[in-house]
Amino acid sequence: MYKIAVIPGDGIGKEVMEATLHILDASDIEFEFKFADAGDEYAEKTGIPLPQETIDIVKQSQACLFGAAGESAADVIVKLRRELDLFVNLRPVKAYPGTKCIFDDVDFVIVRENTEGLYSGIEEYTEDGATAVRVITNKASERICRFAFEYAEKTGRKKVTAVHKANVLKKTDGIFKNNFYKVAEEFTEIETDDRYVDATAMFLITHPNMFDIIVTTNLFGDILSDEGAGLVGGLGLIPSANIGENQGLFEPVHGSAPRLAGKGIANPSAMILSAVMMLDYLDENEEARKLEKALITVLRENKVVTADLGGDATTMEMAAEVKTKFVRE
Amino acid sequence: MYKIAVIPGDGIGKEVMEATLHILDASDIEFEFKFADAGDEYAEKTGIPLPQETIDIVKQSQACLFGAAGESAADVIVKLRRELDLFVNLRPVKAYPGTKCIFDDVDFVIVRENTEGLYSGIEEYTEDGATAVRVITNKASERICRFAFEYAEKTGRKKVTAVHKANVLKKTDGIFKNNFYKVAEEFTEIETDDRYVDATAMFLITHPNMFDIIVTTNLFGDILSDEGAGLVGGLGLIPSANIGENQGLFEPVHGSAPRLAGKGIANPSAMILSAVMMLDYLDENEEARKLEKALITVLRENKVVTADLGGDATTMEMAAEVKTKFVRE
Ligand SMILES: CC(C)[C@H](C(=O)O)[C@@H](O)C(=O)O
Ligand SMILES: CC(C)[C@H](C(=O)O)[C@@H](O)C(=O)O
Repeated sequence: MYKIAVIPGDGIGKEVMEATLHILDASDIEFEFKFADAGDEYAEKTGIPLPQETIDIVKQSQACLFGAAGESAADVIVKLRRELDLFVNLRPVKAYPGTKCIFDDVDFVIVRENTEGLYSGIEEYTEDGATAVRVITNKASERICRFAFEYAEKTGRKKVTAVHKANVLKKTDGIFKNNFYKVAEEFTEIETDDRYVDATAMFLITHPNMFDIIVTTNLFGDILSDEGAGLVGGLGLIPSANIGENQGLFEPVHGSAPRLAGKGIANPSAMILSAVMMLDYLDENEEARKLEKALITVLRENKVVTADLGGDATTMEMAAEVKTKFVRE
Repeated sequence: MYKIAVIPGDGIGKEVMEATLHILDASDIEFEFKFADAGDEYAEKTGIPLPQETIDIVKQSQACLFGAAGESAADVIVKLRRELDLFVNLRPVKAYPGTKCIFDDVDFVIVRENTEGLYSGIEEYTEDGATAVRVITNKASERICRFAFEYAEKTGRKKVTAVHKANVLKKTDGIFKNNFYKVAEEFTEIETDDRYVDATAMFLITHPNMFDIIVTTNLFGDILSDEGAGLVGGLGLIPSANIGENQGLFEPVHGSAPRLAGKGIANPSAMILSAVMMLDYLDENEEARKLEKALITVLRENKVVTADLGGDATTMEMAAEVKTKFVRE
């Protein structure tokens, strides 16, 4: 019995969460779901986007499923990442069948540092504007690079690429790059290289198979993972795992999508794949493969899928279809 | 007679510059080219990547053609941009015939702020790492947004999109966004909107025609313009203009490409298109169109083109072909 915190949040976050829980209900594994509040809607009622109670519930759980937060996202998800020291943001970019991918063999993973960089929260108004501080430490750089290499070993990936802008950000990204190559020395069987973030933004389109694992700082990881989403047919397909020493928080890369919300037609795939990542995190790998396979079958058949995938199913209809296959696996 | 400073720089910078000057020689317009040093090679000999003499030559010219600098790029081109207060970095992203574009109707322009942001040069080592300061001022934000709207008016473009990360960088990008909407009020006939930089990185791939003019801060512009290059077949095709109150500096977006250098096979198109931008800047629009047309013809015919375009011509052979068409126009 796993204790799982569930934060549906705002907009389509609530809808894809309902869909995913509906599927997980059919799992052989037992979960105790504990619901918690956060986001715009909750802030409207209470003035607070992320109550301490929610942080506590997540801390007392083995993992957390998170839907999406609206305008208050920075005060909810960024704060949760920092409060819980979820220092890794793992974002697999993979082309699935039946989706609008530009290339059908894209398969790489972005390992995004999740606690510092331009997300330090250190911003100030000045006489004629404002400044923000980009913080890069040896500790966080070493830790995220080590995670990337260990993840490569664990998953059989062959190459880790550090992405930075050390030609301009000589000191901060110099630190990041140094730590990368220092950690790399311990993993001699894994190929390494490093690229500038601008060049990477180009190569992701012209030579996506150049990349296997990308490890990078916070904001670069944010930008490149959305670009990756573009490569494989949009944000509806990209899950993510926020991982710390004692906790994992799993969320779709997409947001609350106010324009789509309330219609019940959002693609639940990214949330379902986030649940797959949670199952893997809990070492329930067999169950993870079953769920992933069920989703892939539904995507490949391309019949009971949402509008963005070329179908006309509702979120819950697509979820029901995934559930049916999941039970049969 | 125009006084033009010419900085070939390093690697393929020298090669594409030679090719472009070879073509400009056939122009009806008279140029006085004044050569100046900068870059890795010069720094190896003298210890200085960008001598004061070069800065002076550029200051005394009406425009500057710049090839590329290698490892020292930040100390050369970033310094030139700041020293000469070239506050605009204009980067058209356009699909040309005969190129490996993902979509063949891409046509938007990135207006990148060119003097501040994370290029402020304010970086410091700390106890366990380093910090860099992202500087955003009202003055620079107002100025770049105004340029974007005036450029829209001048070129008949219909929409300007501000790109930022104001959900996380609330103060700095708050300033940028405020200035954008304040300037927008003066240009009521132009459509406006704003997007997050991460979402933009995705939409550039899934819905590139959503964009007409993008105005953004320094590093975001750097990343998005390389992504744009990926959309239209690579950096070999993307020119840029660095523009200030009294000066213009024109350079390909690509770098010195050490691995390609010395072989004489680099694609000269980005440098030729940079010369086209220079001609437009000098109000020699007719000559600009002639040169652009000559290049497009060569690209469309896809016969005498370099390897990256599917041909086997050398840089100088392709340039000679463009020159022939240019003379005939
Ligand atoms: C909503 C926003 C604060 C967040 C981020 O910038 O990290 C999102 O874009 C993401 O990638 O998870
Ligand atoms: C070489 C580098 C300093 C430069 C930049 O970051 O501006 C380049 O990438 C560019 O886009 O002109």
